[in-house]
Amino acid sequence: MSESLIQCVPNFSEGRRSQVIEEITSSFSNKQGCFLLDYRADQDHNRLVVTLVGQPKPIQDALIEAAQRALANIDLNQHEGAHPRIGAIDVIPFIPLQNIDMKECVELARSFAQRFYQETSIPVYLYEEAAIRPERRQLEIIRQGQYEALKVEVKNPARHPDVGEPKLHPTAGATVIGARKFLIAFNVNIGTDNLAVAREIAKAVRASSGGFCHVKGIGLALEERGLTQVSLNIVDFQKNALYRIVELIRMEAKRWGVPIIETEVYGMLPADAILDSAAYYLQMHGFERRQVIELALLDLLGKEDRKP
Amino acid sequence: MSESLIQCVPNFSEGRRSQVIEEITSSFSNKQGCFLLDYRADQDHNRLVVTLVGQPKPIQDALIEAAQRALANIDLNQHEGAHPRIGAIDVIPFIPLQNIDMKECVELARSFAQRFYQETSIPVYLYEEAAIRPERRQLEIIRQGQYEALKVEVKNPARHPDVGEPKLHPTAGATVIGARKFLIAFNVNIGTDNLAVAREIAKAVRASSGGFCHVKGIGLALEERGLTQVSLNIVDFQKNALYRIVELIRMEAKRWGVPIIETEVYGMLPADAILDSAAYYLQMHGFERRQVIELALLDLLGKEDRKP
Repeated sequence: MSESLIQCVPNFSEGRRSQVIEEITSSFSNKQGCFLLDYRADQDHNRLVVTLVGQPKPIQDALIEAAQRALANIDLNQHEGAHPRIGAIDVIPFIPLQNIDMKECVELARSFAQRFYQETSIPVYLYEEAAIRPERRQLEIIRQGQYEALKVEVKNPARHPDVGEPKLHPTAGATVIGARKFLIAFNVNIGTDNLAVAREIAKAVRASSGGFCHVKGIGLALEERGLTQVSLNIVDFQKNALYRIVELIRMEAKRWGVPIIETEVYGMLPADAILDSAAYYLQMHGFERRQVIELALLDLLGKEDRKP
Repeated sequence: MSESLIQCVPNFSEGRRSQVIEEITSSFSNKQGCFLLDYRADQDHNRLVVTLVGQPKPIQDALIEAAQRALANIDLNQHEGAHPRIGAIDVIPFIPLQNIDMKECVELARSFAQRFYQETSIPVYLYEEAAIRPERRQLEIIRQGQYEALKVEVKNPARHPDVGEPKLHPTAGATVIGARKFLIAFNVNIGTDNLAVAREIAKAVRASSGGFCHVKGIGLALEERGLTQVSLNIVDFQKNALYRIVELIRMEAKRWGVPIIETEVYGMLPADAILDSAAYYLQMHGFERRQVIELALLDLLGKEDRKP
């Protein structure tokens, strides 16, 4: 058994002041067992999205450090931006990657929520798989009315935090912590400028209109290119494989005699999502991820970390 | 830039005495920067095949240690086995994996050959991409007549070693060192028991009868399953992609109205071989390997190794 590996994508309410962004992200660099894969600061959203991969303990330690730095620098009463938020440290999702299952990630999120409150005095709402109140599985519900409304409504029992007292932190608001599956952002460009076609295809494939249960999607125009796009979020790539989604879209597009021009993975995805599709098309029988040299090597590096 | 990564697959002429096998392979375990991915000892072949991945320097250091242990334990005058061999340490190929090209691997093989001779007194023949004499690109030519014949013929200028004096080591013979591309062993099982069909398909796909330039292959019967198999070695997966080989075989099989039942990767393959095929079938535009979380992480771990 090698080390368990999680992804964590904390969102901070600061996308403009580069010194604060630098200070927060530096909590994640040069930490043994916590790897900063990417961070993006958006000025319009006034928000910082950080992508971490590593072992649970070092990631959590680094999160506490980053939270304290965010706390010292961000005052939500002064904060404005296009993206909805309720806290300086707005959302912290834990995502299982390797040698750890969702149940363990839920435990991890819940115990981290306790520690987070103890060390920062910021109250916590638990969401998605880690939600204790069923309606709080949805982030939108927790964030309703944002910081400004929640500051008042938090006294209402229906809006009490899951961890901490029923009041927000005076400058840092509240934080949403939870566990969820890996989300793949996947776009499929269709060889037509007819937006109705892309919308019909999106309907066929997405859960909300009866398609695959773990796919969200809309049809968009790519006006400059004279194409349309089916823009998707795959919220469970193990149940709704990439190849199955692409082939369903190809099949639906045939109804209008239009082809798939190309697809695009926006951001990152786990190796298993690719291996699964390659194995389908190439009909690979009994293929295992440790047959891929790089993945076998990563596994060995994980073991090496644990040497006394 | 991160650390360069090579694969190395040394072959030793010992497949029976477990203590000697253990002693040789232990040179490769617990070495910083050198990872023992796999080893297989074959009793019939009386041969040990070790798969290493890591950085050039630590791999070479470990190879010298392993060679000295093999030297102390193996006497080719007493050795018999089904597999052709000329040395106790029979073959050492270096294979580029990441952040290193073939030219660098050739230099690496040639300079290692010098060091190897200095530290073991075993003469060296250079093969494949590292060959100095063109005919020695082929391992079969160097190994002609095996240890027993070479012991005499080594005095003949045509068979002089490339490094060292024109005589074999009295117990360890000679060693073949070189650089080559990654080889993928890939089988495609065909839904017919007609061996002639598998043989015709193998002919269509392999270089020796005019197919793809970097593919070797034969047709075989899988008698117990009532199937046949096109058994392939892909010696340059970047030029002859997996998907192209599979789809050509599928097309040829149609001539006889038979399907591909399944395919099988025997042993390991680099991530790029899978990514390339997934990108083809899923029509992924602009997809990069660092979008795969595990590969991005491996890259970061490589950088971390170099910290002062």
